[in-house]
Amino acid sequence: MTDPRHRDLLVTGAEIVDVVTQSTYRGWFAVRGGRFVEVEAGEAPPPDELPADERVDVGGAVVLPGLIDAHMHIESSLVTPRRFAEAVLPWGTTTVLQDPHEVANVLGAPGIRWMVRAGQGLPLRVLSAVSSCIPATSPDIETPNASIRPDDVLELAREPGVVALGEVMDFQGLVDDDPHLVAMVRAGAEAGLSLEGHVPTLTGPALSRYVAHGIRSDHTLATPEKLREQLRKGLWVMIQEKSLTPEVVAAIMELPDRSRVMLITDDVMPNRLTSGHMSRIVSTAIARGWDPLDAVAAATVRPASYLGLRDLGAIAPGQHADYLVCDALGVWPPRQVVRGGAVVAGGGRVVPFAAETPADPLLVTTFGVREVPEGLLALPTGPGRRTVRARVVVVNDVNSYTRLDQRDVAVDDGVPVDDDLALALVIPRAALRGPLPDRFEVGLVGGLGLRHGGWASSFAHDSHNVFVLGRSPADMATALRAVLDAGGGMAFAPGDGGPVAALPLPLAGLLSDEPIDAVAAGFDALERGLRDAGVGVLHPVLLLTLLPLTVSPDWKISDKGVVDVQGRRVLPALVAARA
Amino acid sequence: MTDPRHRDLLVTGAEIVDVVTQSTYRGWFAVRGGRFVEVEAGEAPPPDELPADERVDVGGAVVLPGLIDAHMHIESSLVTPRRFAEAVLPWGTTTVLQDPHEVANVLGAPGIRWMVRAGQGLPLRVLSAVSSCIPATSPDIETPNASIRPDDVLELAREPGVVALGEVMDFQGLVDDDPHLVAMVRAGAEAGLSLEGHVPTLTGPALSRYVAHGIRSDHTLATPEKLREQLRKGLWVMIQEKSLTPEVVAAIMELPDRSRVMLITDDVMPNRLTSGHMSRIVSTAIARGWDPLDAVAAATVRPASYLGLRDLGAIAPGQHADYLVCDALGVWPPRQVVRGGAVVAGGGRVVPFAAETPADPLLVTTFGVREVPEGLLALPTGPGRRTVRARVVVVNDVNSYTRLDQRDVAVDDGVPVDDDLALALVIPRAALRGPLPDRFEVGLVGGLGLRHGGWASSFAHDSHNVFVLGRSPADMATALRAVLDAGGGMAFAPGDGGPVAALPLPLAGLLSDEPIDAVAAGFDALERGLRDAGVGVLHPVLLLTLLPLTVSPDWKISDKGVVDVQGRRVLPALVAARA
Repeated sequence: MTDPRHRDLLVTGAEIVDVVTQSTYRGWFAVRGGRFVEVEAGEAPPPDELPADERVDVGGAVVLPGLIDAHMHIESSLVTPRRFAEAVLPWGTTTVLQDPHEVANVLGAPGIRWMVRAGQGLPLRVLSAVSSCIPATSPDIETPNASIRPDDVLELAREPGVVALGEVMDFQGLVDDDPHLVAMVRAGAEAGLSLEGHVPTLTGPALSRYVAHGIRSDHTLATPEKLREQLRKGLWVMIQEKSLTPEVVAAIMELPDRSRVMLITDDVMPNRLTSGHMSRIVSTAIARGWDPLDAVAAATVRPASYLGLRDLGAIAPGQHADYLVCDALGVWPPRQVVRGGAVVAGGGRVVPFAAETPADPLLVTTFGVREVPEGLLALPTGPGRRTVRARVVVVNDVNSYTRLDQRDVAVDDGVPVDDDLALALVIPRAALRGPLPDRFEVGLVGGLGLRHGGWASSFAHDSHNVFVLGRSPADMATALRAVLDAGGGMAFAPGDGGPVAALPLPLAGLLSDEPIDAVAAGFDALERGLRDAGVGVLHPVLLLTLLPLTVSPDWKISDKGVVDVQGRRVLPALVAARA
Repeated sequence: MTDPRHRDLLVTGAEIVDVVTQSTYRGWFAVRGGRFVEVEAGEAPPPDELPADERVDVGGAVVLPGLIDAHMHIESSLVTPRRFAEAVLPWGTTTVLQDPHEVANVLGAPGIRWMVRAGQGLPLRVLSAVSSCIPATSPDIETPNASIRPDDVLELAREPGVVALGEVMDFQGLVDDDPHLVAMVRAGAEAGLSLEGHVPTLTGPALSRYVAHGIRSDHTLATPEKLREQLRKGLWVMIQEKSLTPEVVAAIMELPDRSRVMLITDDVMPNRLTSGHMSRIVSTAIARGWDPLDAVAAATVRPASYLGLRDLGAIAPGQHADYLVCDALGVWPPRQVVRGGAVVAGGGRVVPFAAETPADPLLVTTFGVREVPEGLLALPTGPGRRTVRARVVVVNDVNSYTRLDQRDVAVDDGVPVDDDLALALVIPRAALRGPLPDRFEVGLVGGLGLRHGGWASSFAHDSHNVFVLGRSPADMATALRAVLDAGGGMAFAPGDGGPVAALPLPLAGLLSDEPIDAVAAGFDALERGLRDAGVGVLHPVLLLTLLPLTVSPDWKISDKGVVDVQGRRVLPALVAARA
């Protein structure tokens, strides 16, 4: 038997951040079998003690627990779990709870299982949620590619690291006791999963009825009033970057008990991952007035408590030895990132690891179609110039909210003459396996500023059919061909003689298995192309992936037409054709 | 399908205590299927809403969550779970986590199973721990009656409501990686149980090594330093009445995060149950300076969080509708106590319920012996007067700590002449099934003040053999006969012509199935008898049940002799006989 006092690793001279008492103290700690076994005040243990296999003096560096992200979607970063791990470990994120909502929308339960398994065996701890609202809406609103049923929940809950039922986005359905949704949350509860919420707007009795189904959290945009009501109603509140307003931070700091308030990322685009992950949220929170030690608690011990992870989240005996050695609190990247006692990153670089992304034919999207006739990408107004009465989905510069305009639109061969109007359509994945149908529902988008070129993307929330948009059917067809050739991805064909920018996402048409730097560069090129073509919105690519999201306010584009999200109905883009 | 807005019960005009935001607000709430479905600010819902089956206006009364006791032993109150429920529900305790450590010591795994099942189907929610340190010490120190093995833990963990492994009292054994204890905690962890601690003295690396086994809490006497070290090391700290010193309360109030500090009762004697339970701890905490709303949180939402009970502990949608209607915060008993939407007590009286204590021959203790010869109850010094050198276990007036004296003791027919010295012995239960052995190890106890009479009790920590003590072997034999006749219990024979006081505890020799008032009256009679006979210590009966507890400092009496607790050895009472 090993001596019970044996130490694999002894770390001395640390300024330990205790997230429970929210204090720091000079201390030392020992690790055995991947867990902390001693965590003590003082510079180092007495010299006459048993030696450790390895001894490190960190010279007064700050040591805090590894950061835990309790709500996020790996797919938003457009990479596989292993590439995501490479990207975030250097920034100190050591645990995530992923909700593979995008892969689930494309591939259903087998896709979730693949994402769960692709998250295993990595230096990043990847816990998973079973996505709950697949498809996000009725097939009358948009053609889905997959569905998740209560039986899937029960079966997927047995996969390693599955601890939650993903955000129940159809909040109104649950408020109204929709039988399918009720069965889903019951299956989640029966399987012992944490039931994740998504509550952008509910208040009062409707919020109560939603929460009464056992929903435990919300992560949508917070306000002080919403925060207080949600806490009172038993929800744990997850604060993401956009919620970190001075008012919200002040309201949080006024709470006598902040133990149910956490920091999370939700979605991070690939080009932002190169400069931080949970680290950025923690720093932003502190910059906006959140007490620094409390902010660290909100990204470590609290998400662990929330998820019932009894041995994670603090520098304390018995806990997994996941910790960060930092030059100072809030200085990123950490000097060293340790997971289970082993160094996994340092100085902004990941320690290379061997894990492979599991190969599976399931993930390969084969599009039989390569060329889509330009005529299918324009309005069906016939040849020549004319004016039509049309419904236009109008975007704004800062967020994904949209409104509807009805206007008289001049078109030439089915293409709007007005520089500010783009053609937009959603092509079901199934249609692109061929043969092509005779026509698609083509709509109009205003307010983007796009002057020329064409966009195509198989990453298109939530069903992830292929979204195509542009000023010219020829450029749209070019972009679409680039996407189809790559087996999925995003492409922008500027149409001004410039090269086509393409980001291949060949796994489920959603993910790349290339390193994050390459994906971020591809993403930057797309954004640059869109900006150069006149698009002035804050996050051009993000906005384009959200234009087909038919559960987000207020007017969207689907393969069925123009979607009235609140009214849950579809309208044709053309009101009436005029001579 | 029932309308999703249907309400079984609507309560209006409440001053709701929210234990999460630690605030109160005027509100109303609805209950459906035993759970809160709506909890809203305002006096009442709009009048045009669906009617409720029942509607109650509480006229501004304070409504708080039912109190939760996360660490306690029902047996300390000497009654069965159903009688305990009757006693505590009127005081607002609606959930307890029992550790049936006494029954376990007598009957082993079948005893735990019986206690678990006896706790089911009551209006009180009874969760259970599997007692972990049975027997408490080695058979060389005291004859045990039962043992619990890792396999028992795995099996008992499948019983309804079993959520924890009971306090690991042999802390030094776990620090030293004792294989049996390590196997016990591993079994507990494997079964998903919360591993409860018991850490009276450990600090520094030894405490770390204890906690590193996955131990989650401590409930022993707290000090400010101990509190801070334990929190830093990841323990949840349970504060019992004796820990509520002004210094400890001040230290708790200084914590920026108190989410891991709870209030618990541990042991409550039957005569104290008639004036409160968790209610008293909450009130005492407030009186000592604990913020009132934080104290309520420490007795509701925090123990629920600690135990991972996601749907208990707050007045919030989806939570079990366990709540108290009080005239004001801290005024006890509550006007009404509600569990799962049903009134279970009010105005200090329980609503009668039908649950029976399960009958089981296992619980019946049959003692074959009735009469024990007086000679076996005295020191073996032979007839007549002489002086012997003897080890005397000396008690003090305020707590259960003892010290050892060696002194020359004058005896007459084996009975000490000195008024302050009592004979004391432990008789194994097995010996009382007969035939009797030739002799028992008889010791001496000083400092009690007992001038006459004899005491016997089959409730005698931790093995619960029969403890006998007195000034006169005849009175001791009388008391012992009363206990044996009752199939277990406590008795005091004053020997001054007064009547024998007896409290029958016929279930496992530990528990009564009589109402709490009767048991409290019997208990009071015992205490009165002891006091009248000169015993001046603070809690006479409690002290006598702890004198055979061979794991509590520093010198105790067992059937093997005088026990040196720290030294883990047994010494004879007589050092040398002198002529």
